[in-house]
Amino acid sequence: MDNSTAAAAQQRVAGYRRRFDSRFAAYFDSLAESLDTPPLSRFTPRCLELLRDLSLRGGKRLRVALLYEAARLVTDEQVPGLEEAALSIELLQTHGLVHDDIIDDSPVRRGGPSTYYAYRREFPGDDSTALGLAVLAGDLASFLSMHVLLGADAPAERKQAMLEVQLRAGAETVAGQIADLERDFRPLPSEDLLHTVCEYKTTRYSILAPLRLGLLAAGEDLAGHDERLRRYATPAGISGQMRDDYLDLFGDEDVIGKSPGSDIRSGRRSYAVRAVLAAATPAERGLLESALGDPGCTAGTIDRIRRIAREHGVDDALRAAMLRHAEEAAGEASGWRAHWREEAVAFFEGLPLWNVRRAH
Amino acid sequence: MDNSTAAAAQQRVAGYRRRFDSRFAAYFDSLAESLDTPPLSRFTPRCLELLRDLSLRGGKRLRVALLYEAARLVTDEQVPGLEEAALSIELLQTHGLVHDDIIDDSPVRRGGPSTYYAYRREFPGDDSTALGLAVLAGDLASFLSMHVLLGADAPAERKQAMLEVQLRAGAETVAGQIADLERDFRPLPSEDLLHTVCEYKTTRYSILAPLRLGLLAAGEDLAGHDERLRRYATPAGISGQMRDDYLDLFGDEDVIGKSPGSDIRSGRRSYAVRAVLAAATPAERGLLESALGDPGCTAGTIDRIRRIAREHGVDDALRAAMLRHAEEAAGEASGWRAHWREEAVAFFEGLPLWNVRRAH
Repeated sequence: MDNSTAAAAQQRVAGYRRRFDSRFAAYFDSLAESLDTPPLSRFTPRCLELLRDLSLRGGKRLRVALLYEAARLVTDEQVPGLEEAALSIELLQTHGLVHDDIIDDSPVRRGGPSTYYAYRREFPGDDSTALGLAVLAGDLASFLSMHVLLGADAPAERKQAMLEVQLRAGAETVAGQIADLERDFRPLPSEDLLHTVCEYKTTRYSILAPLRLGLLAAGEDLAGHDERLRRYATPAGISGQMRDDYLDLFGDEDVIGKSPGSDIRSGRRSYAVRAVLAAATPAERGLLESALGDPGCTAGTIDRIRRIAREHGVDDALRAAMLRHAEEAAGEASGWRAHWREEAVAFFEGLPLWNVRRAH
Repeated sequence: MDNSTAAAAQQRVAGYRRRFDSRFAAYFDSLAESLDTPPLSRFTPRCLELLRDLSLRGGKRLRVALLYEAARLVTDEQVPGLEEAALSIELLQTHGLVHDDIIDDSPVRRGGPSTYYAYRREFPGDDSTALGLAVLAGDLASFLSMHVLLGADAPAERKQAMLEVQLRAGAETVAGQIADLERDFRPLPSEDLLHTVCEYKTTRYSILAPLRLGLLAAGEDLAGHDERLRRYATPAGISGQMRDDYLDLFGDEDVIGKSPGSDIRSGRRSYAVRAVLAAATPAERGLLESALGDPGCTAGTIDRIRRIAREHGVDDALRAAMLRHAEEAAGEASGWRAHWREEAVAFFEGLPLWNVRRAH
């Protein structure tokens, strides 16, 4: 992908995001009318407000871009059902974030308070009400996600296939989150296990489902293409996860918008953490192990771990690995020219490489 | 409903339950094959096992009986899609129970450990992992609930209407649970508020949705009947909730399978608690208010509150009210003879009265 292609892709992503964000706001505006909620309740509108706040603080909306570009693999015409699929994808994301922040006890999400902590602030000294309301807020987002897709303006059979994709993505993501919790009980999880967790926890709902939904909405029969989509999604997902994990340890605070080392502080055996554990001397490993899961671990300790990682070449190895996976995905996409439209193929070809740039 | 009609209805309910329970077990057996989960994970099969355990410890399965009898209002033939609708209804129930027990911090459910407490036992000293896994288990049940319905052997348009019913029921139940939490922040909630909470938290998914799903599966167009169903479901729901609340305070431990007063101990402004608060003298009210939400409240205090309640005639008034609501529902059902099949109408007519018998 040369610079002009990258710039074009970036512009397209930004355009999808702008249009989607205004559509997402309109969706929440209409919810007050379309959703039947208890007339005397003040907690229910507050819950919807918090879901709206979190939902509209959404970063790049790459999932939405993947969805629209997947449809554009087949046609340049307007495709009915894409808008609802985009809403469904991002509501499922909201659901996941709300519950994730309960599970990880995270105060901050997308530059604002997590839903759980917003409630904790509103019910000081009453964590159990805050917890209850946050669990329910996440549940509501999940039902809304499927409901909005059900309302898509698409033929019944096609919509059914889209719901199948999205419900499976929801269930498989839960399984991935369970495996993610399980991973951190292992002193040194294998890289294969990390790939597996990434596939289920992230790739399925974040890359594969948007691709499938976009193609289905555009009238494509998935049966002949699904292996192709997986061969793209899996390495693209791993590459993106490696980039996040890399930046969490090696990134500049200015660039990543948070202090580095959060994976270490919360005990996450990320790709970066795992690589340091595997490469370190016993003494260095002891240092990292005592920092893992310690929320009070200082910036100085994170800095020492980072230096250790660099001495063992973990940063270079991780950058090389994420590039390799990105190239694998790009290579798969380049083969799509035999089936699909050039301009969208070029987008999918460029995206994985563009995605790892921040780490290079 | 004379005794022989009641006995016949009871037998039908028991028959539905037997058939459903074995179908539900088979569903969980097949899940290992049909659900794509991380190959290296041991936590995922454990999660499915806990969902199975809780799901199969399911009481009378009245929701399933309502569903099948609703179809029988229209036809005595076998109706495709009912089995999947029944699984969906009970999986949605499982989802709600798992999350409810987190919200209420309940150790026991259906005579066994709640999912949350089963996990707490497996991760002693690590409540945050237990909490995370329980949140995820509930999430999984919710996706499975909608997914099994999507797989129903019914025409696409009809299935879509069924999914609409079930997704709305899911969302409205969440709103009801939120209103339920809100209720307990009011010193003396109005009876109207209690009716509203009951309608959203229980009636919608537990009575109205099964009725709608059964009729839809049998090919009935809901548009002309929905008011009718609501006029039945709302008083039937209130009557059933009043019976539960009545038994929680006035029931014999042998009959209700738990020690009385759990609503008081967990601070729930139930119909019974609310009626005592409204009728009591200031001193008596002070006693009840200090017991409300105190998990350590003794059996002796519960006993004193029960005596106070009886002195004010709360028990008689509650029994009269639940009977009045049951009769209202039965009266509505008796009018269904103009549209629907006699034998199923008789079932719906008898059920609310049969349901309050335990309290009379």
